[in-house]
Amino acid sequence: MQAFKRYASTTPSQFRSVIYSSHSLEDAPSVLSVHRYTPKGDLSNLVVVRTLAFPINPSDVNQLQGVYPSKPEKTLDYGTEEPSAIAGNEGVFEVLSVPSHETSLKAGDWVIPLDANQGTWSDHRVFKNASDLIKVNGLDLYTAATIGVNGVTAYQLVHNYINWTGNNEWLIQNAGTSGVSKIVTQVAKAAGVKTLSVIRDRDNFEQVAKNLEDKFGATKVISESQNNDKVFGKQALPAILGKDARVRLALNSVGGKSSSSIARKLERDALMLTYGGMSKQPVTLPTSLHIFKGLTSKGFWVTENCRREPQTKIDAIRELIQLYKNGALVSPKDEIIATGVDPQASDSELLQAVRGGIKSPGKQVIVFKW
Amino acid sequence: MQAFKRYASTTPSQFRSVIYSSHSLEDAPSVLSVHRYTPKGDLSNLVVVRTLAFPINPSDVNQLQGVYPSKPEKTLDYGTEEPSAIAGNEGVFEVLSVPSHETSLKAGDWVIPLDANQGTWSDHRVFKNASDLIKVNGLDLYTAATIGVNGVTAYQLVHNYINWTGNNEWLIQNAGTSGVSKIVTQVAKAAGVKTLSVIRDRDNFEQVAKNLEDKFGATKVISESQNNDKVFGKQALPAILGKDARVRLALNSVGGKSSSSIARKLERDALMLTYGGMSKQPVTLPTSLHIFKGLTSKGFWVTENCRREPQTKIDAIRELIQLYKNGALVSPKDEIIATGVDPQASDSELLQAVRGGIKSPGKQVIVFKW
Repeated sequence: MQAFKRYASTTPSQFRSVIYSSHSLEDAPSVLSVHRYTPKGDLSNLVVVRTLAFPINPSDVNQLQGVYPSKPEKTLDYGTEEPSAIAGNEGVFEVLSVPSHETSLKAGDWVIPLDANQGTWSDHRVFKNASDLIKVNGLDLYTAATIGVNGVTAYQLVHNYINWTGNNEWLIQNAGTSGVSKIVTQVAKAAGVKTLSVIRDRDNFEQVAKNLEDKFGATKVISESQNNDKVFGKQALPAILGKDARVRLALNSVGGKSSSSIARKLERDALMLTYGGMSKQPVTLPTSLHIFKGLTSKGFWVTENCRREPQTKIDAIRELIQLYKNGALVSPKDEIIATGVDPQASDSELLQAVRGGIKSPGKQVIVFKW
Repeated sequence: MQAFKRYASTTPSQFRSVIYSSHSLEDAPSVLSVHRYTPKGDLSNLVVVRTLAFPINPSDVNQLQGVYPSKPEKTLDYGTEEPSAIAGNEGVFEVLSVPSHETSLKAGDWVIPLDANQGTWSDHRVFKNASDLIKVNGLDLYTAATIGVNGVTAYQLVHNYINWTGNNEWLIQNAGTSGVSKIVTQVAKAAGVKTLSVIRDRDNFEQVAKNLEDKFGATKVISESQNNDKVFGKQALPAILGKDARVRLALNSVGGKSSSSIARKLERDALMLTYGGMSKQPVTLPTSLHIFKGLTSKGFWVTENCRREPQTKIDAIRELIQLYKNGALVSPKDEIIATGVDPQASDSELLQAVRGGIKSPGKQVIVFKW
C-alpha cells in the first residue's frame, strides 16, 4: 500500500512542522517557518503517524492570511516562544504505532484526520485516539490526500440535501472543470443523477467538454454564454434535458451572473447550494425566482458540516472509498501538481517547497518521499 | 357596521364588473372595460355579496399586464364575446343573502374572498359556499379591504418561519415605511419581537423615523446609508441591539445592496425572506454569508402560501382581527387614498375611477358609496 520505502517506519525523537504564529493578508507564505521539537506526552499512549502527503488548499492559505472563520488554537506545546499553530488541515498519514488498547488501527494503516485544524503540514503528528482519524486504506496517495475536503464536499453536495428518486433528475453546476465539480459529476452519475455542467467559454471548448463527458461522465456540458443566454434556455435546453426532466439542485461555486443563470434552470421549490465564489461576485438572485419559483438559496461549508456532524464525514468517506474501489470514481491524480520532498531535506528546502506550492496555480500537493 | 346606507341591500337583476379579455404591458388600464350582465345560476343557492371597497394592488396591475404568474381563468360566463376575467383579487364585501342551509354567514356580514383570482372589481359577486369567504366583522372599511394581502403577508412573515422565544430577539426589514412593513412592525411588537426598520435617506428622516417608532412601535429606525455603512454596523449597531441580541429574521422587499446589508446583520444560520423587489435589483448575497454564516435566503408569496394552505390565511386573519380589536394594530386608513364611487355612477365614471387609481401613486382603494 505504501508508495515509498526508503526510510524505516520508526518514530524519530524530534518532529518537524511548518508553523505560524502571526498572519499576513498580503504575503501569507512569509508567516511560515519550519520548527523542530520533541512531541509532548508518552508516545506509547498516543497514535503516532507520519505524513505521506498534504494538499495546499485555498482555506489553508486563508488561515495564514487570518481571514478564515475556522482556525486552530495557537499553543506553546511545540516549545515555540510565541503561541503557534501547525499549518494545514488536510493530508494522509501512515500509522506508525498505536496504544496497546487501540484495536481499530494498526501500524501501516493510512488515515486522515477527522477534524479540521489538526495541523497536517508536518512530517509526523500524534493523536489521542484512533477515533480522531478515519481509515482510508485502499486509496491511492492523491485520492487519500484530498478526499477529506474535495471528496467529502462533492459527496455531501450531491447526497445530503436531495432525496433523489431517479427519474430523469438533474443537477446543474458551474465551474464544471473544478476538482470538486468533477467528483460531483461522478458521484451523481453513480447515483443515477444527470449533470449539466457549465464551464467558461474557451477556444478548446469541445475538447474540454468531451473530456468531462467521456472521462468523468458529465451528462451534458454547456458554456457560460449558453448558460446566460435566455433563448438557449428556452429553446435548446428542453431538448437536452428531455421529457419530464426535473432540475432539482444547483451547485454554485462562482457567483454573479453565473449563479443567477444556473438558478433560473431549476424547477419550482428547488435548492441552490453555494460552496465557493470564484468570480468574487456575490450570489445574485432575481427576486422573481425567490417569490414566484420558491427558490431556496443556502450555503455549504464542509468544515462546519463535519464539525457539527462528524459521522456524516465518516459515512461520506466510507461511500467514496467504495465508489473508488468499484471504479465509479477516477483518481484526481491527473489534476494534481505534486512536489516531492525528502523527509531528510533541510528546513529551508521544506519551507521552499511549501511556499512554492502556495504561490503556484493548480491543485498543489506536497509528498514526503519516505 | 356599514359605512353607507343610501341604497337598499337588495340584489339587482344585473351586476356590473370591471373586466378584461386581453393584456397590455405598456398600458394596463386600456384593457379594462365595464360590463353589465345577469349573474348565472339560481341566486337563492349562492352567497350573494355586494362590494364595499377594493384596493388596487401592484399584483392586480401585473395581471392586466400579463406578467403575473397567478391569474384567473377567462370565461364566457359573463356573456362577453371574448373569454374574460373580472379584475382584482382583494376587497371587502357585504353579504346580501345566503342559501337557507348556510348557517355560518348571514346578511350584513362583512367578508373577504378566501382565494385569489375571484374578481373583486365588481359591484356584486356570487360565491358557491360560505367557506369561499372569510368573515371580517368588526374591522373598519380600509382594514377589511386590505387585510387579505398586506395584513396576511405581514402576519405570516413574522409568525410562519421563526419560533420566537422572546429574549431580545429582533427582525430587520427594509422599506420600513411600506404598508406591509408598518403592519410587520406592529405584529412583531405584539409578539414581543423587536424591529430594526431601514428606510431611505430623506430630508425629514428624524420625523419619519419618530412616526414609525411612536405610531407603529418600531423599536429602532435607521437609514439606508447607515444600513450600508460597515462602521455603523460594527460600532453603533451593537449598542442599539443591546446585550445578547439575536437578529433572527430579515425581511427584504427592496433587493440589491439593501438586501445584502440587512442580511449581514443577521445572526448565524438565520433566514432572509424576500417578498418584493422595489429597487428592481436582484437579491444580492455575499458568498461568505451563505458559506460561513449559514444564511438561508427564501422567497415569500402570500398567494401561493394561501393556495397551498388556505387555513393559514384564515388563522392569520383571525389573529389579526384580535390584534385590531385589542388596539395592538392601527388601521391603515391614513395611508390609503380612497376614491368614492356611487354605485349608480355611469360605466365611464366607474371605469375612470379605476383607471385613475391604477395610474396614481400611493395605496389606492375604490369605495362603493352604497
